[in-house]
Amino acid sequence: PPNNSKNGFSSSTTIKSFINLDQGDPMLFKEYWRKMSEKCTVVIKGCELLSYLSDLGNVCWFMMPELREAIKRLHALVGNADTNDKYIVVGNGSTQLFQAALYAFSSSSDEPMNVIAASPYYSEYEEQTDILHSGVHKWSGDAMKYDKNEAYIEVVTSPNNPDGSIRGPVVNNKKCESEGKLIHDLAYYWPHYTPITHKANHDLMLFTFSKCTGHAGSRIGWAIVKDKEIAKKMTKFIQMSSIGVSKESQIRVAKIIEVLCDIYENFKCSGSSKETELFFELSKCLMKERWEKLREVIKQSNDFSLPKFPKAYCNFTNESSETYPAFAWLKCNKDDDCESYLEKKLKILARGGTRFGSDPRYARVSLLGKAEDFEEFLKRLSIDMN
Amino acid sequence: PPNNSKNGFSSSTTIKSFINLDQGDPMLFKEYWRKMSEKCTVVIKGCELLSYLSDLGNVCWFMMPELREAIKRLHALVGNADTNDKYIVVGNGSTQLFQAALYAFSSSSDEPMNVIAASPYYSEYEEQTDILHSGVHKWSGDAMKYDKNEAYIEVVTSPNNPDGSIRGPVVNNKKCESEGKLIHDLAYYWPHYTPITHKANHDLMLFTFSKCTGHAGSRIGWAIVKDKEIAKKMTKFIQMSSIGVSKESQIRVAKIIEVLCDIYENFKCSGSSKETELFFELSKCLMKERWEKLREVIKQSNDFSLPKFPKAYCNFTNESSETYPAFAWLKCNKDDDCESYLEKKLKILARGGTRFGSDPRYARVSLLGKAEDFEEFLKRLSIDMN
Repeated sequence: PPNNSKNGFSSSTTIKSFINLDQGDPMLFKEYWRKMSEKCTVVIKGCELLSYLSDLGNVCWFMMPELREAIKRLHALVGNADTNDKYIVVGNGSTQLFQAALYAFSSSSDEPMNVIAASPYYSEYEEQTDILHSGVHKWSGDAMKYDKNEAYIEVVTSPNNPDGSIRGPVVNNKKCESEGKLIHDLAYYWPHYTPITHKANHDLMLFTFSKCTGHAGSRIGWAIVKDKEIAKKMTKFIQMSSIGVSKESQIRVAKIIEVLCDIYENFKCSGSSKETELFFELSKCLMKERWEKLREVIKQSNDFSLPKFPKAYCNFTNESSETYPAFAWLKCNKDDDCESYLEKKLKILARGGTRFGSDPRYARVSLLGKAEDFEEFLKRLSIDMN
Repeated sequence: PPNNSKNGFSSSTTIKSFINLDQGDPMLFKEYWRKMSEKCTVVIKGCELLSYLSDLGNVCWFMMPELREAIKRLHALVGNADTNDKYIVVGNGSTQLFQAALYAFSSSSDEPMNVIAASPYYSEYEEQTDILHSGVHKWSGDAMKYDKNEAYIEVVTSPNNPDGSIRGPVVNNKKCESEGKLIHDLAYYWPHYTPITHKANHDLMLFTFSKCTGHAGSRIGWAIVKDKEIAKKMTKFIQMSSIGVSKESQIRVAKIIEVLCDIYENFKCSGSSKETELFFELSKCLMKERWEKLREVIKQSNDFSLPKFPKAYCNFTNESSETYPAFAWLKCNKDDDCESYLEKKLKILARGGTRFGSDPRYARVSLLGKAEDFEEFLKRLSIDMN
């Protein structure tokens, strides 16, 4: 990384190196999994998991039955999504499933289907949609501005990445008479990030293990799908794209979910688990603590501002609380380019607002990083304000 | 499966159920890995492999260094590909890498790039190329018939799937003055299938672990790429498609490759491994045995025929031998539709010639299946001929 000596600080406070808060690499949860490390251990022998096939009787033939059961159990525990009478499709992260969903919703139309999301939207949707200049779908930008009389797919991300807001579809159906399909990206609809206010029950919901427990290296996501034909098309897309999903990851994720759920069951039924072993409660404390510290620093000046979130009652934790998003959607009040300001002035790598179809005065900063990076981030903000 | 009583056999030889030899699920090697099961065991703890990132200093930032080293070691041992001064990109099977290669070779052109392969070609290339009706590439069929003056990508599969032939590029460059890019799909260029006659050294080579050792459930493939910019674009495609590749699979594949190579090293250096532990020699015996049995049955009549393969000297096994392909490219001499004949008459599911851009009198039959399925296949062929 370049060394910029004109950073405006006195030598005693010179910022030595960059901290990368651009990606949402979920290192925050590692400490918890270190404690549960032995319990979650999987052992895979040389002759296991050879076949391409997992479950030929099921629509998603490459999904291992134990993972399907674990995912259903997890949603039943948390109460964040209804899996009854629905199809579950596993993917190489929810990224692949997003593209599978676009394919499934668009493949029967003659014209490229419009793909939209309300700004600020997840920075990668646009490129994931358009990377191959597909003739079946195309990115059509901000859903708030959508006024074509053409079929569309609206992506609803809730809580939203980057700004943490709770969202529903926004296309005005009176204005747009064409058929709209919805993809609900619920990557952050877990109790450590936001109150679980209802059991989501949409046509197509995406989840990812990366943001649920922090196991991003496993590349496991899943879709919960109402319509069998859509689930079949998604399965076909993943077959064409990668002939399925790593079985090693599938059995490991199943194991980790089982351990997580067992701890809750043992806590409720026999008291043989301790409160400090409950993953979501513990992780919510971490998120809350980071948000409180960050708000404390921000309120010392008018240089930056943060979104505010309403309180809501969480059916899982049985308490009323705010949303504690995985990212801070930071607004810079003294510079028109927040990303560039953070980079040049504070050597903090963040993702600027334009990447999210929004204002460059905003930038997204990951709050899921290592403790030392988060503390250093707060320190640099404080120094900057003084 | 439907029960067809008009199958032409007497009641004593009624064929009860279908055998599926359509896919190339590599169950043949399971017995070997059962013996090596403990040696190859991997143990993964709960707090390991959390991050998205693997190796930020490398072009393919999501590839684990131990897998890269293991792959280089394997190619050095076998002598089938030159990895010196080349970039290695890992993918979710070679399927994803094929699409990444198409993207990397086409993304800079204005018109959709023509993708071609000499018939008979692997049945999935066409749909993998065209699934999204991409504006950057399109399937243009048989490379032998290609006569457009437009840029193209020729896929060279050697040994070929489905027919086992040894191949080079076929587009006549005098006729076609446009630039051609080559993808070498070397999935079957391993000593158990074919003599290793030279160290392949092409611009872009694809390999898959599925066909090398039989670990298809791990979904690990790799590309060996000369040009850094192409490797970067392929990495970007995989990032956009799945944000990387399962780390669980990566470390397991690295471990299995290390055990495989260690056995060879110990055999050569200290004699502490036995000859019956050498994976490729043992697997070659299995392939040879199946081919000899199959040829024995086929030669009993004129009903079916099989391709013949020339002998060549293998630099790895130090002996001259034929190719023993993973599939039999069966020609039916008494029916115009080989797939349908096998299905209706013998209850054998195979993949018909038209799927490979070829003649329906041919069908591809997997020779990598379970022993009982292979023996049953031979039995049904014999009964049919008598």
